[in-house]
Amino acid sequence: IISKLPAVGTTIFSQMSQLAAQQQAINLSQGFPDFPADSSLLARLAAHSQAGLNQYAPMPGVVALREQIAALTSHCYQREVSAETEITVTSGATEALFVAIQMLVQQGDEVLLFDPAYDSYSPAIQLAGGVPVHLRLEAPSYQVDWQQVAAAITPRTRLIIVNSPHNPTGMVFNRADWQALEQLVCQHGLYCISDEVYEHMVFDAKPQLSAHGFAALAERTVVVSSFGKTFHVTGWKLGYAIAPAALTAEFRKIHQYVTFASFTPAQYAIADMLAAHPEQVAGLGVFYQQKRDFFAKQLAASRFRLLPCQGTYFQLVDYRAIAPELTDVEFCQWLTVQHKVAAIPLSVFYQQGSEARIIRLCFAKQQQTLAAAAELLCQL
Amino acid sequence: IISKLPAVGTTIFSQMSQLAAQQQAINLSQGFPDFPADSSLLARLAAHSQAGLNQYAPMPGVVALREQIAALTSHCYQREVSAETEITVTSGATEALFVAIQMLVQQGDEVLLFDPAYDSYSPAIQLAGGVPVHLRLEAPSYQVDWQQVAAAITPRTRLIIVNSPHNPTGMVFNRADWQALEQLVCQHGLYCISDEVYEHMVFDAKPQLSAHGFAALAERTVVVSSFGKTFHVTGWKLGYAIAPAALTAEFRKIHQYVTFASFTPAQYAIADMLAAHPEQVAGLGVFYQQKRDFFAKQLAASRFRLLPCQGTYFQLVDYRAIAPELTDVEFCQWLTVQHKVAAIPLSVFYQQGSEARIIRLCFAKQQQTLAAAAELLCQL
Ligand SMILES: CSCCC(=O)C(=O)O
Ligand SMILES: CSCCC(=O)C(=O)O
Repeated sequence: IISKLPAVGTTIFSQMSQLAAQQQAINLSQGFPDFPADSSLLARLAAHSQAGLNQYAPMPGVVALREQIAALTSHCYQREVSAETEITVTSGATEALFVAIQMLVQQGDEVLLFDPAYDSYSPAIQLAGGVPVHLRLEAPSYQVDWQQVAAAITPRTRLIIVNSPHNPTGMVFNRADWQALEQLVCQHGLYCISDEVYEHMVFDAKPQLSAHGFAALAERTVVVSSFGKTFHVTGWKLGYAIAPAALTAEFRKIHQYVTFASFTPAQYAIADMLAAHPEQVAGLGVFYQQKRDFFAKQLAASRFRLLPCQGTYFQLVDYRAIAPELTDVEFCQWLTVQHKVAAIPLSVFYQQGSEARIIRLCFAKQQQTLAAAAELLCQL
Repeated sequence: IISKLPAVGTTIFSQMSQLAAQQQAINLSQGFPDFPADSSLLARLAAHSQAGLNQYAPMPGVVALREQIAALTSHCYQREVSAETEITVTSGATEALFVAIQMLVQQGDEVLLFDPAYDSYSPAIQLAGGVPVHLRLEAPSYQVDWQQVAAAITPRTRLIIVNSPHNPTGMVFNRADWQALEQLVCQHGLYCISDEVYEHMVFDAKPQLSAHGFAALAERTVVVSSFGKTFHVTGWKLGYAIAPAALTAEFRKIHQYVTFASFTPAQYAIADMLAAHPEQVAGLGVFYQQKRDFFAKQLAASRFRLLPCQGTYFQLVDYRAIAPELTDVEFCQWLTVQHKVAAIPLSVFYQQGSEARIIRLCFAKQQQTLAAAAELLCQL
């Protein structure tokens, strides 16, 4: 068999989580909470399932959930979207990204994306026959140089993928970033995929902006989000895509043959939560900012240098003062095996690698987990 | 935007289920049970979720579930497969089919499939850049003519997709069918996708055969199955793919970027059920045979002519004696709107359409539903 993804191995997230388990290390690698989800969410899942809602959901998602998504979008970004024609529930944000890329990328199309990049973008582009064009963001700000982006656009460029708040750097787009993006997309007739799975985790009173807030951009964009991240249930694999009706129609054509529909009772449970407890979503930024700050405080005495973190649940740290001779992959291996804390090397998010001495720590963890990890990290 | 699937509309299953709801018709169209799943399955879902198993499952599926799948495969087909390297849990059989097709089909490859065909095969082949080659099966037996298949093989043929028990016809492969398939696949170096989602629904003591039982075939085959169908929870979207390690490695590379993983607590719940109640799977054939027989008896007085049904939960019926002037699409529309029973026209499973006066009725329904539907159908 001829591999379609010859360069791909098992994702770093699976690898590191496995190593963490094997080494009984504190797992700050793969991004997921170690604290329980809201018990009323779990109670609703059980109730809907026991009430008999276990058959196929409608292909675009349960209506009540799509209506709640429309309300949330209106509330957060003052954009009115149609539950009927502009929202599709997916089996995780990963499926939404895959389908959006399949839909938008034709054979030979160039796709702009920013390294460090989430690991699914590039393989999905390749499977669609496209050519990923990686632009590098660099420490410490990881800001986009929009002139560099403009210079990278060719007649074959069809799509740009952005991710704000940004995994793994915690960088968050300013208004000026969104405006520059909007201008380039419109001027060159590109499409955009806006991966906003950490949308509600923005810190320090920085405004929570989105492609939704920029009308001309939104016309040409698929916005992707994730309930797994928002409701602390990454294993529920429930996400969604919002796009103008014409794009959504094409999105659904592909979605219906990729997974068709998603886990039914969870859709009803999330719809209930959004209706009954909208404050949980609104409070997510403060919730994770406290974790970021707690973790930073615990690490203050360490020899790690913390990079700025404006959003997401990831903290980048520079370990140059501890082991400058180790690559970040070597450092993560050593840290997990010898010091029982698992992290993700930054370089794996760069197609061409990176010489930076930086690793990613996930702080979506209970206070005691963060404290225990910090104690180990402070010994280095 | 240039559509990648210009010919595709909303699946007939969604269309008919929607029309059924709108018309308050008895829905025998889309294939799903109207009776509750086992309450202990639902209790286990709730328990695992409430116990905190709500984060990412391992990318290939929860280990306990993969081990139960291996045990089931050994029990049903005496094939030993490795949970570690040969089994991948997917977000429904639809995802398994999509990923297997993505993995096996290169640009320009020809793929043999049999019409009437499940509606996802052809679009998935097109999205992978392949060329679907449709071979027709005809009433009343819908048996494969293996000489016709051999004649259709060209140097570009790479893959053959089979489906036994067969949706929508209820045809089940004999040993001779599997042997002929095995010979063609091996002789021509093809790959095979064996869609066996109705594997446990085989009637009249016909042997339950599978690609698993034919060693040389199994070496080149991805076998796809579905827990949604086996456990009466189609909305759980949980399926799996079994393939030799080298194929599974490629399958997982793609799966990890299509959905990454599937709903975690449901995987544990199904693993429990397979361990605690293997008799439920074993009893599925008798369970559905009783429904088939009950429904046939209720329809005996009707003017519908029932076609043979050896497996699945679908019954084809010929309505020529009632309305020969109506196409099957027209007949289904009329039946739903005027007589309040929703069905699926057979012709939509044929790429070139079909002039047959045949529709598909799903009998995965409670006795009272089947009786009520039959009463309406007997009035025609
Ligand atoms: C799908 S596993 C990866 C989880 C995640 O988003 C991350 O750790 O970056
Ligand atoms: C995914 S909806 C289709 C259900 C089904 O398998 C059928 O009705 O044939």
